[in-house]
Amino acid sequence: IATAKYASVASEAELAAALEQIGLPALLKTRTEGYDGKGQTMIRKLADANAAWDGLGRRPAILEQVVNFSRELSVIAARGVNGETRFYPLSQNTHRDGILRLAVCRTADPMESLARRYVDQLLTALDYVGVVALELFEVNGTLLANEFAPRVHNSGHWTIEGAATSQFENHLRAITGLPLGATHAICETAMVNLIGAVPDSTAVLAIEECHLHLYGKVPRPGRKLGHITVRAADAEALHSKLSRLAGLPGVELER
Amino acid sequence: IATAKYASVASEAELAAALEQIGLPALLKTRTEGYDGKGQTMIRKLADANAAWDGLGRRPAILEQVVNFSRELSVIAARGVNGETRFYPLSQNTHRDGILRLAVCRTADPMESLARRYVDQLLTALDYVGVVALELFEVNGTLLANEFAPRVHNSGHWTIEGAATSQFENHLRAITGLPLGATHAICETAMVNLIGAVPDSTAVLAIEECHLHLYGKVPRPGRKLGHITVRAADAEALHSKLSRLAGLPGVELER
Repeated sequence: IATAKYASVASEAELAAALEQIGLPALLKTRTEGYDGKGQTMIRKLADANAAWDGLGRRPAILEQVVNFSRELSVIAARGVNGETRFYPLSQNTHRDGILRLAVCRTADPMESLARRYVDQLLTALDYVGVVALELFEVNGTLLANEFAPRVHNSGHWTIEGAATSQFENHLRAITGLPLGATHAICETAMVNLIGAVPDSTAVLAIEECHLHLYGKVPRPGRKLGHITVRAADAEALHSKLSRLAGLPGVELER
Repeated sequence: IATAKYASVASEAELAAALEQIGLPALLKTRTEGYDGKGQTMIRKLADANAAWDGLGRRPAILEQVVNFSRELSVIAARGVNGETRFYPLSQNTHRDGILRLAVCRTADPMESLARRYVDQLLTALDYVGVVALELFEVNGTLLANEFAPRVHNSGHWTIEGAATSQFENHLRAITGLPLGATHAICETAMVNLIGAVPDSTAVLAIEECHLHLYGKVPRPGRKLGHITVRAADAEALHSKLSRLAGLPGVELER
């Protein structure tokens, strides 16, 4: 499975060697406990490298090439105890400040077959049971794997109202040995994250076929507080609904 | 709103007068706490009438004409605090032993407009807020109201996976003053009750686009233990899935 170039960083000597090998700019990432842009920092100048590692507590890290991608995609898949595997349509994802903002379900995306091949390799290699997400960069018409999440994934939340079977139901089916459910999208659908703030419920629900999911968390800048799933009969209607959501508190849809 | 003929029964004298007025066969029904065929009994012969009322504990009752209906239908509607009202497509219902067995969503049923007019009258007269169900008999091309349920209703459970917004979500939206959600069916859909027994989960979930809802209740003859919602791309596929379900424990689809 193709990835961006990367090198191990566990000492200052390794950091220097990695910088030489990977070049700049590069991302320094802790090997564990990273999420939503936490545990990683961008290095643009050689002189900043040691301070960057200090900022991560000098924990074992990797230095990773910065990928100039055209799109961010993810593929959600489920694998049962008996090896039965189902794939959802790809999600096309938009991040801002390292946090997912928008995931749009992409029926029959040209990258679908390669993405499925990659995630299938992963599931087989790990003899995995349950739902997994593999995040991908599209670069020059091909895919690089970015990270995988061994669980239900934020970029698959559109499946709650948008797929024949939600990723949550399929995870439970998988780990309890039940047959997996159908994974096709039932219409055009997308998911909008609510970050740092929550809009007025009335404003969201007044938009036809929007469903509001709130997590009951205390608002804090950069914190995921909920999400909205959106369904529409066609791509134009979906776009129009997303435009109406775009101005609400907690919603940022542009990269 | 048209109903079957009925008369009050609060004494033996009233029972005798009611039998004269309504004729036989007739249904004797308690005025409160009836459900799933409980609190009602069929009188076929005059000589059985007093014993029938004894069987209901001589509680205040009504005697109701038996209606020779061609179909049983129900209409689920939601009304918001501000009077906004939404109607789901009709459910066509099959009962056995007084218990609902099967509800099939009927998009554009010829009885839809009359059913909506009736339930709208009811909602307006009661200044109702929330979800309501009105059960109807089709007789000679028109409708007689049978009963209404001031709540979410078993015959609307297909909305959980089959409608743009489930009856449960719309009830919560209604009573909390939020905008109501769209009520259209997203495909061909139906709901099968599990009565007295629960089939093997694998057998149910192996049928594509079946969702299993179990209530965690102790099995008892005639008890509702759960339901299955079924979705399909067309009526033929729906029928084929229902046929596969028909043989399972707890499922009885024929009247």
